[in-house]
Amino acid sequence: MMIDPQRYPRLSRIDVPADLRQFPAEELPAIAAELRAYLIEQVAQSGGHFGAGLGVIELTVALHWLYDTPTDRLVWDVGHQTYPHKILTGRRDRIHTVKQKDGVAPFPKRDESEYDTFGVGHSSTSISAALGMAIALQRTGDERKVIAVIGDGAITAGMAFEALAHGGGMGEQPGGIEPNLLVILNDNQMSISENVGGVTRMLGRLTGSRTLNALREGGKKLLGDKHRPAAKFVKRWEEQWKGMFVPSTMFEELGFHYTGPIDGHDMDALVGTLKTLQGMKGPQLLHIITTKGKGYERAEGDQIGYHAVGPFNPDLGMVSKTGAKKPTYTDVFGDWICDMAAADEQLMGITPAMREGSGLVRFSKQYPQRYFDVAIAEQHAVTLAAGMACEGAKPVVAIYSTFLQRGYDQLVHDVAVQELDVLFAIDRGGVVGPDGATHAGNLDLSYLRCVPNMVVMAPADENECRQMLSTGFRFQGPAAVRYPRGTGPGVEVQGSLDLLPIGKAQLRRHGANVALLAFGALVPAAEQVGEALDLTVVNMRFVKPLDRTLLLELTKTHEGFVTLEDNVVAGGAGSGVAELLAAEGLTMPMLHLGLPDAFQHHASREELLAEAGLDADGIRAAVLRRWPQLGASPTRSAAV
Amino acid sequence: MMIDPQRYPRLSRIDVPADLRQFPAEELPAIAAELRAYLIEQVAQSGGHFGAGLGVIELTVALHWLYDTPTDRLVWDVGHQTYPHKILTGRRDRIHTVKQKDGVAPFPKRDESEYDTFGVGHSSTSISAALGMAIALQRTGDERKVIAVIGDGAITAGMAFEALAHGGGMGEQPGGIEPNLLVILNDNQMSISENVGGVTRMLGRLTGSRTLNALREGGKKLLGDKHRPAAKFVKRWEEQWKGMFVPSTMFEELGFHYTGPIDGHDMDALVGTLKTLQGMKGPQLLHIITTKGKGYERAEGDQIGYHAVGPFNPDLGMVSKTGAKKPTYTDVFGDWICDMAAADEQLMGITPAMREGSGLVRFSKQYPQRYFDVAIAEQHAVTLAAGMACEGAKPVVAIYSTFLQRGYDQLVHDVAVQELDVLFAIDRGGVVGPDGATHAGNLDLSYLRCVPNMVVMAPADENECRQMLSTGFRFQGPAAVRYPRGTGPGVEVQGSLDLLPIGKAQLRRHGANVALLAFGALVPAAEQVGEALDLTVVNMRFVKPLDRTLLLELTKTHEGFVTLEDNVVAGGAGSGVAELLAAEGLTMPMLHLGLPDAFQHHASREELLAEAGLDADGIRAAVLRRWPQLGASPTRSAAV
Repeated sequence: MMIDPQRYPRLSRIDVPADLRQFPAEELPAIAAELRAYLIEQVAQSGGHFGAGLGVIELTVALHWLYDTPTDRLVWDVGHQTYPHKILTGRRDRIHTVKQKDGVAPFPKRDESEYDTFGVGHSSTSISAALGMAIALQRTGDERKVIAVIGDGAITAGMAFEALAHGGGMGEQPGGIEPNLLVILNDNQMSISENVGGVTRMLGRLTGSRTLNALREGGKKLLGDKHRPAAKFVKRWEEQWKGMFVPSTMFEELGFHYTGPIDGHDMDALVGTLKTLQGMKGPQLLHIITTKGKGYERAEGDQIGYHAVGPFNPDLGMVSKTGAKKPTYTDVFGDWICDMAAADEQLMGITPAMREGSGLVRFSKQYPQRYFDVAIAEQHAVTLAAGMACEGAKPVVAIYSTFLQRGYDQLVHDVAVQELDVLFAIDRGGVVGPDGATHAGNLDLSYLRCVPNMVVMAPADENECRQMLSTGFRFQGPAAVRYPRGTGPGVEVQGSLDLLPIGKAQLRRHGANVALLAFGALVPAAEQVGEALDLTVVNMRFVKPLDRTLLLELTKTHEGFVTLEDNVVAGGAGSGVAELLAAEGLTMPMLHLGLPDAFQHHASREELLAEAGLDADGIRAAVLRRWPQLGASPTRSAAV
Repeated sequence: MMIDPQRYPRLSRIDVPADLRQFPAEELPAIAAELRAYLIEQVAQSGGHFGAGLGVIELTVALHWLYDTPTDRLVWDVGHQTYPHKILTGRRDRIHTVKQKDGVAPFPKRDESEYDTFGVGHSSTSISAALGMAIALQRTGDERKVIAVIGDGAITAGMAFEALAHGGGMGEQPGGIEPNLLVILNDNQMSISENVGGVTRMLGRLTGSRTLNALREGGKKLLGDKHRPAAKFVKRWEEQWKGMFVPSTMFEELGFHYTGPIDGHDMDALVGTLKTLQGMKGPQLLHIITTKGKGYERAEGDQIGYHAVGPFNPDLGMVSKTGAKKPTYTDVFGDWICDMAAADEQLMGITPAMREGSGLVRFSKQYPQRYFDVAIAEQHAVTLAAGMACEGAKPVVAIYSTFLQRGYDQLVHDVAVQELDVLFAIDRGGVVGPDGATHAGNLDLSYLRCVPNMVVMAPADENECRQMLSTGFRFQGPAAVRYPRGTGPGVEVQGSLDLLPIGKAQLRRHGANVALLAFGALVPAAEQVGEALDLTVVNMRFVKPLDRTLLLELTKTHEGFVTLEDNVVAGGAGSGVAELLAAEGLTMPMLHLGLPDAFQHHASREELLAEAGLDADGIRAAVLRRWPQLGASPTRSAAV
């Protein structure tokens, strides 16, 4: 799709940042306006991350205009703010394909563009990565600049703090060099959800500092016509003398030179300040204030709702869907936690900054004193739960599969070693889809199954998800329920809080020859194939402990087992079945169907499952490749 | 072993803290002196963690005297500082059994004592756990106190920061309560290694603050006779007015009320300050200054050397062992990294605060500009390496297996997804031993094997370890070499930097019937059993990728496979072999020998391997249970 040169006279001439740099400074605000309009137009068509990009329009233009990208290294944290960056760096005419299979990736991706210096997706990695780059470059005398842009949400994570502390203290180590690194703190007082905690408190105080605001106002008057040379000079040093009046900040204490806060939508201020900082050595932190959704009124007014959007009409905004829609697994969890909280006052709900995504909005309102948003802090979230469990509370950690990887050690040592009574409600397990490899939940069954003392469940449908949540909650010890993104088969969810027997599978279908042992989301497809080929179908329910009794019985009456899971085969649930049989001294022909030993690119969940051969067609084909005789009977060969 | 009441007239009467509380305040310094002498006497006999305990003698006495433990909840970070705590809480006469099988655990352990409120081992968890406890207690109106004691090393970890930020900001959240939590920062300017980074810098400034020191000195003069009532009153409020002059600290900014610093060996100051703090609500941070090794001159002078010790003569101190001793795997790594650094100037060495333990002392001296101690910051360590690799450097992350669990998400997303050229040198893989479950490396093959793009190796001996390090370093992409604690079979290490072919196993012995497929540390035992029973023995070398060609060949000539690994069976290397065969449509009787699906208690490495049936006797017995006919021939039945 070609850009319209009438509507976008400047942007249409910018294919790469070198083109941008041909424009004089005076035209940058106009370019920013075109970029903003184009982003709104494009995302309204395609859907995608929206508010964060609108907030960094000016910053993106200023950085690519001032710095020699991609020679200078620009690392964007999280990356859902990088659509404007992608538009300016060769992907303008393809941005409408974002998140689609073979389209532009939703996050920076090293193999997509040389301007994407570091693949991000999980937050709070940018300072570490940029510091690594700065060190590597400086060591060889390379004077390229390195810039990390991180949000005020992302900087709450311990990992960002670790990187600041390391970078800030390096110059004082023996043999240490002062890293020439600029960290830009993009402070919009929002992450995906509301920001919480001590860092937000601190930044709030900083932003609100009266001295500083007075100075800023005074400075504006003083400058008058901002293009007079004297005013330019004063502006250039504005941040410097501002810095003198700013109270000591955490950043200064850690060894970073702090500048700010400045208005991140004021192009002159941005360019002026960045120019000053370009001449400074050592670790620098620039604090800018922006508005998420800037320039699109509806997004400014509903920053959480417009964080990521589906296609919409820019003139009308998002239209809330009417009519009954199938509940997602997230909805099922959200209802369950409210109902269980009503039934058991020891229940505590914990989220690392994912209230909306994890379905905790209603719970947070109904039970504000039992709701804990700990900010982007997965490590802390898990150990906080462990501490609560020590004193008789019953914590539920609501977390995405991919983010639980950040609390793995805490899950192992603080929860599992001590057999503490913590329930992990793991959303986005298995194939996730359009967000790409960094948001996939493809590994969780493997990294959870090897942990002693854990009970691990995967539901076949919505009602079973609810039953499993109740079961894990009532189980005295560490338990995990891992459910997929989006909707399930549409089974009606009962309002009760029934329990399932631990370690018992459900025989769904008696068939001949081969048994399909399906875990979680693959049960419906397994049933289709089982019907078509007249095979036994088991909804395994428990990844750990496995239903030993049933499996041993099935070995007597079947000539082969097919395990099915939306997790990598390596170390997955299917391997658990094989291990169990081997431990019993049994030998059984096995076919393990699961996700490949490769990171999957972004595409829809359905596309990725089909690509991995995990839709009904793929499963049927794989079974027949292994046991061709199963397709011999004409009644069985009907397409599934 | 009974305590001598002549030498320890007070300590011998203290079985539990309730006994301690019978003594008047005036006797606390004498009790501390006895406790210190007893600790020196006992650890000199048994070996164990030493310096940290000596540094918190006064604090331990003060806390148990003032607080109603175990009703009040005392959480010790890391836990190698808890020998004095254990002596005062019912384990005085058994402390000499520390770290031994069935002896006292080296770290707090919930099932060992009700005074051990939270099992620790990895650092930086205490604030999260204590905050969880405080929340759970406060919610039910329970007014028990919760105290976390954390070192200045441990507080550098992002996780501790996350907990401070959450706890400090809670009061400002809707529905939020102010947690009544006291965090005691035990600042000895040391962790296990030297402390580094921005936090150390900040604490240094705080401690060294001239205003504060002047105040402290002034206060001392003012107080004069410290037992006069007026002086006591002033002392009681000393910290309060001190606080007014202390520059804004990170702790205050995050929402904690900061008190300190005070001398952590001054019992009066400690007791007085703690009493004041007992009456205060909301999140409190008390900063105390202590000396690691306090009271044992040699330990004060060599804080790193005396962090943990073997048995020694208290009058002579540790005697350095003479004569050639077998190099440990850590030594092999330490030599290799120096040699490879000489051969390739792109090599960078990264450690999360484990210079000594990881064998990086010589490297840090020879290559100070290529040596990066990032403090206790595993998440950052891994992503820093990823950033370096983006710019052509070749980072080596030296890390214990158990600590790599803290950087798992970063390994997956920042390194493996992007196929960056990072080598993980993973020490303490598999069974670790005396440090117990929190230091075990029992899971790494499982959690690494499921990650796409990784090459994972486990050496059978010292020389192979060196070859694998070279191989992983030269491999263009993410690679891990995982080696055990301590010494290996004693194979001479060649000085060259030879490479091994990726994914190729080594056939060690041709035998009949059954093939023993051994990974890493279990190869020598497998060879013994192979000799005794005339079995094929393969040194697998690569956990990923497996040697497919060799495995397929072996299926043709053998009737069964035994896989051997010092990792849990669940999802381990042996499961990888089974998965490979299943993917080829092959069915083979398998026996997977590995670590149990349970956390192992502390004991020696040899004891734990034998307990798991992974010494030669255990392996032989397991093979014969499965294939009794292998023991039928008299020449084969000789004991291994």
